[in-house]
Amino acid sequence: MTTTFTLSRRAQALTSSAIREILKVTERPEVISFAGGLPSPATFPVERMREATEKVLREAPQAALQYGPTEGFSPLREWIAERLSRGGARIPASRVLVTTGSQQGLDLLGKVLIDEGSKVLVETPSYLGALQAFSLFSPQFASLPSDAQGIVTDAISPEQMAGARFLYCLPNFQNPTGRRMPLERRKALVELAARAGVPLVEDDPYGELSYGGEALPSLLSMNPDGVIYMGSFSKVLAPGLRLGYVVAPEQVLAKLVQAKQAADLHTPTFSQRVVYEAVQDGFLDRHIPTIRALYGTQCQHMLAALEREFPEEVTWNRPEGGMFIWVQLPKGLDSGKLLAKAVERNVAFVPGAPFYAVDPQTNTLRLSFVTVPGEKIDAGIKVLGELLKAEIAALRAAA
Amino acid sequence: MTTTFTLSRRAQALTSSAIREILKVTERPEVISFAGGLPSPATFPVERMREATEKVLREAPQAALQYGPTEGFSPLREWIAERLSRGGARIPASRVLVTTGSQQGLDLLGKVLIDEGSKVLVETPSYLGALQAFSLFSPQFASLPSDAQGIVTDAISPEQMAGARFLYCLPNFQNPTGRRMPLERRKALVELAARAGVPLVEDDPYGELSYGGEALPSLLSMNPDGVIYMGSFSKVLAPGLRLGYVVAPEQVLAKLVQAKQAADLHTPTFSQRVVYEAVQDGFLDRHIPTIRALYGTQCQHMLAALEREFPEEVTWNRPEGGMFIWVQLPKGLDSGKLLAKAVERNVAFVPGAPFYAVDPQTNTLRLSFVTVPGEKIDAGIKVLGELLKAEIAALRAAA
Repeated sequence: MTTTFTLSRRAQALTSSAIREILKVTERPEVISFAGGLPSPATFPVERMREATEKVLREAPQAALQYGPTEGFSPLREWIAERLSRGGARIPASRVLVTTGSQQGLDLLGKVLIDEGSKVLVETPSYLGALQAFSLFSPQFASLPSDAQGIVTDAISPEQMAGARFLYCLPNFQNPTGRRMPLERRKALVELAARAGVPLVEDDPYGELSYGGEALPSLLSMNPDGVIYMGSFSKVLAPGLRLGYVVAPEQVLAKLVQAKQAADLHTPTFSQRVVYEAVQDGFLDRHIPTIRALYGTQCQHMLAALEREFPEEVTWNRPEGGMFIWVQLPKGLDSGKLLAKAVERNVAFVPGAPFYAVDPQTNTLRLSFVTVPGEKIDAGIKVLGELLKAEIAALRAAA
Repeated sequence: MTTTFTLSRRAQALTSSAIREILKVTERPEVISFAGGLPSPATFPVERMREATEKVLREAPQAALQYGPTEGFSPLREWIAERLSRGGARIPASRVLVTTGSQQGLDLLGKVLIDEGSKVLVETPSYLGALQAFSLFSPQFASLPSDAQGIVTDAISPEQMAGARFLYCLPNFQNPTGRRMPLERRKALVELAARAGVPLVEDDPYGELSYGGEALPSLLSMNPDGVIYMGSFSKVLAPGLRLGYVVAPEQVLAKLVQAKQAADLHTPTFSQRVVYEAVQDGFLDRHIPTIRALYGTQCQHMLAALEREFPEEVTWNRPEGGMFIWVQLPKGLDSGKLLAKAVERNVAFVPGAPFYAVDPQTNTLRLSFVTVPGEKIDAGIKVLGELLKAEIAALRAAA
């Protein structure tokens, strides 16, 4: 008899995305890719990491290579708590769980907070990786009205909030849109959620990547007992370490810890100690400005190219930080079809539709500007501009 | 309104184990602990790891710190496939998924293969971490008859096999019992599973830790299309790296990859490259014999102490490899209660009950011998022997 591998319903629902298949071609060196969500490797502090690994393996090799506590390496948890406490509210280290990238935080939250059919509120659009992680636990997503400033708090009714397990959002330089929630919206959102008794899940991998202007307070700092916060070292140090963290009220954290124990026992001790060594003397405060400067320059370069090359029917935002620009095409254009044509001309981006939990808007797309050199930004955006002009002309001819 | 964190049913079912609480005291330096599942840090190849990290950060720093493919670092996957192919059957690298410790493999398998109520077959007793990982997906465990040689294949009826999603087992030096399945049993198990069409999940973290005698063929090598295999670098290199792997037929692997993408995107690139550098020239074949020699000596030391100190009513096995000895107390004795008394005298072990998926046998316990120096093994086993003699005397007096 042939061995039968019966897949769970949740595994059957997992589908390999068509986009992912198309984007495999972006690995070809001749492709100019605005598709990646990768930070620029030029920002990785290699020398610092070398010193940190050398120190860890010299001073505490056996501890660094041994199993460790599920909650994480204590000095790192304390460092994280201290840094987050800069936001105003004091965050104790006992609320911090170190995770294997903040993606793992999403998986653990799904496990601990979502039953089949649970209502989960998300932005429109939202981070694809979160939608995927939560989907494994079969929630009912409800997509909240959002504009260029994030969730439109005024447009949300008490019925929309009622009974939700949590509201998931990225207030800073959101993936995919690059948008940032202004202070007034943050205040309104925290108040709205507190009034409804609904927890907020604040995902903040890009918060430190502001090109200028003041940092805005986190939702966590506004209501530590009502917010689960997720942070990451991926965008400020290096993503290949897979080091993130979740901050949650103690009773939730205890459950996340139990779920993490079953998921991978703990995040690699070695990487935790190396990252702690790398950051403990204030290094990030010297290092992050260099990332901001690079990304700000790259962003300006792409914005200039868009101004120059894109037809006037196409619109986009002007990010104040982060890694992405969000583009709106005229109704009737499909960015998935555009991608197929762009790839033929060796240019890639990510179509916007998969970022919508419900009612996908196919006339949107995401551009990442951080890893592509200036002249390639120019060349790639020129190609996209030409394709868009042709598409719009064809659309008009058909109308 | 107070924010309400409504836990999922699966999170509510997670309980903090009473044992775990008791075992927290084992962190006190005066406690002689046979409770840990930790490998001996004396076996960690620190100098080798230093050279490997240094090489990775010198030769490919940016790639090592960047995001990587979910499947894992290709040269490492190829190395793993090649090593497993020594078992006879050729295992292609396309069947290998690198995981964040083999614990993650268990979580991914639960996600991909278990629906609520799915029948999952396990040994009696079985690895606690697997029971915990699978439990999150609410299977119906069925515990197969087992003896000192593992699953008693002759005693299994077709009805017991029918409809199971998989049969999970550790053929080599099982955690918690230290037992190894002999060749005939392996053959019978593979045949039985194949006849029933039920996949085998072979968990093999201890396979290389044989103190002597020949290695036995893996279930994987006997039927690559019917077995999902899990391996780990934790016991042969260092556990703090959290590096394991799953080998599965392509259609299952594809789903595991999708589930892993949602779980943590990928296992840290840096650790994967460091481990690859550490092992690629055949290092493990030189290194593992030193671990075997140490653990074999430790095991003999504990066995001698048990012979000397334990009353004749107590029995135990004589492991041929691995890290654990399994002890059977007379019926009527409860190892949980024994633990409380032992901890008062600064000795710890793990009671056996939690390792049973159903029908826990409270008169069992697990002893780990790998990290405790010889004189402390003597002292600790002496204390346990005294307690056991007193318990047995009390049991007789009560009868």
